[in-house]
Amino acid sequence: MPVGTNAAVRGLTPAELRSVGAQCVLGNTYHLWLRPGPDLIERAGGLHGFMGWDGPILTDSGGFQVLSLRSRCVVNEAGATFRSHFDGTEWLLTPEVSMEVQAKLGSDIAMALDVCPPYGCGPRELDEATQRTLRWGERSLAAPHAIGQAVFGISQGGTDLELRAVAATALSSLPFDGYGIGGLSVGERRDETWPALAASIANLPKDRPRYLMGVGTPEDLIEGISRGVDLFDCVLPTRLGRTGTVFSSDGELDLRQSRFRSLNGPIDSECDCRACTRFSLGYLHHLFRASEELAMRLASLHNVRFLVRLVANAREAICDGECESSSARASDRTSRLALVEQA
Amino acid sequence: MPVGTNAAVRGLTPAELRSVGAQCVLGNTYHLWLRPGPDLIERAGGLHGFMGWDGPILTDSGGFQVLSLRSRCVVNEAGATFRSHFDGTEWLLTPEVSMEVQAKLGSDIAMALDVCPPYGCGPRELDEATQRTLRWGERSLAAPHAIGQAVFGISQGGTDLELRAVAATALSSLPFDGYGIGGLSVGERRDETWPALAASIANLPKDRPRYLMGVGTPEDLIEGISRGVDLFDCVLPTRLGRTGTVFSSDGELDLRQSRFRSLNGPIDSECDCRACTRFSLGYLHHLFRASEELAMRLASLHNVRFLVRLVANAREAICDGECESSSARASDRTSRLALVEQA
Repeated sequence: MPVGTNAAVRGLTPAELRSVGAQCVLGNTYHLWLRPGPDLIERAGGLHGFMGWDGPILTDSGGFQVLSLRSRCVVNEAGATFRSHFDGTEWLLTPEVSMEVQAKLGSDIAMALDVCPPYGCGPRELDEATQRTLRWGERSLAAPHAIGQAVFGISQGGTDLELRAVAATALSSLPFDGYGIGGLSVGERRDETWPALAASIANLPKDRPRYLMGVGTPEDLIEGISRGVDLFDCVLPTRLGRTGTVFSSDGELDLRQSRFRSLNGPIDSECDCRACTRFSLGYLHHLFRASEELAMRLASLHNVRFLVRLVANAREAICDGECESSSARASDRTSRLALVEQA
Repeated sequence: MPVGTNAAVRGLTPAELRSVGAQCVLGNTYHLWLRPGPDLIERAGGLHGFMGWDGPILTDSGGFQVLSLRSRCVVNEAGATFRSHFDGTEWLLTPEVSMEVQAKLGSDIAMALDVCPPYGCGPRELDEATQRTLRWGERSLAAPHAIGQAVFGISQGGTDLELRAVAATALSSLPFDGYGIGGLSVGERRDETWPALAASIANLPKDRPRYLMGVGTPEDLIEGISRGVDLFDCVLPTRLGRTGTVFSSDGELDLRQSRFRSLNGPIDSECDCRACTRFSLGYLHHLFRASEELAMRLASLHNVRFLVRLVANAREAICDGECESSSARASDRTSRLALVEQA
């Protein structure tokens, strides 16, 4: 899911997102709550009408952004009290408020409010955050939400495998439509990430979508899919694209490097995006050197397309050889996906 | 002609330019000469191949930009010696060099090198610049150019009507494919602009296109067309668009103003561009407040479309009622265009 923080995936139109096969877009509740506000968006036909995207939309709870304000935010059992980064006014985000805002935004999937423990925090803070996330999950589920709106819970647990398992098991007893796995890719080493992910997934319902939040790179996507993840979101394709870095089958390329100056070929000859079918590496290099806005658009478009193709290939590999029972899928996936990774 | 200084109209793809009916794009020789260089562009299939635009391209001579460097530029009869704004290296722009660079860029229309006298300069400087422009015009015409490439001369004369007439008459004796009118919209009052334009046009060949350089606003376009101008270029639609200002039948609108916050209608209900058919004023206002790149794209696209529609309507009005003899067209146009202006 490309990230459309302010009701727009940076630099790209809904038609372009559709053209590269993006299926679902993420909107950030914190940003949209503060500006332009959920009432205005509701009157404009919800986020779909406001931003002109008729595909599925997932909204986060706002919790991650609010807690990132650190010194400007105080959390207790009721919720998180924080000062807006726009004007310093004080706001209170609770599970109920988050669900109310998300209902007005009219997303297809709303996320329960959670507490994402910072990487490296002590065991007590980790445990408290993980337990509070479960209680806030219950409150989120009990709060009114929009008709037809799915609600996903979130399991935390840091890199503590036992806590991951306990939290996922407890969350599974709540009738969410899907399950987010939070608190990964927040600074931990990758050899901590994947065991933690596996510990969560092993204890989540087999018949519901699993969403690995805020991840990631092409490599991370493959690792996640091989462990049973169904959904990802990340700002990476557009954030990297704006700075001139593009995904390719040869890894990341920094288009500003002078080695691309005279190259007439595309970023990736396998890619069917507009950047690859219409423009040369040399031209894109030139545009980045000249700080032309068009460069950022084209690189972002390519990066989104690259990830969409990656997961489409993974999906095909899974369906092709398997259509396996849910319980078996995690292990079987790994071998199937080795093929994707090579391609 | 939308301006594509660095081989890109800021923020827009060639496909988008085509979709809004842009016919011809301008490239800046000064910028492209210094970066990425004419040899590289030539190897990439000329400017058309490099930027992926298969419609007509006009390149300027580079003179206007070089002379704008002021203290970093010394002009004598040979040409203009200047220091690059990139790295301080010294370069010499002569009529012959300009034509050579433009030949490599492979534009459809190349402009002769001229000296644009600054507004408010003394009569001696004005006369010298105007006469030197004529001599450089001759040299430009004599220099080799690309096969099939049209060459336009430029007439100067500041706001001195007599000098305008003399310069245009002298330029007319040279077999250019078209004629630029330079040195207007450079700071003079509009009641000085239009008599000066008329003095040039009255003395240019009736059967060749006339190009009013660096102009302008919707109002300026109508004024120019009514006096017999066929071609314009201006950065205004994209420059204004990037800052949130859009053309409309109600004049310019600053989309950042809070009065647009809750409006669900389009910029201009008559307009068929993607910004107007897909997005609301309230959404565009929000995008500009959030500094989203998409806002700049959409506003730029709309502004280009607005000017293309304006001149298309003017063209229709001329053809409809007139298809008049060239000599009569300037006066007849004025009344016909009143209709366009009202619309």
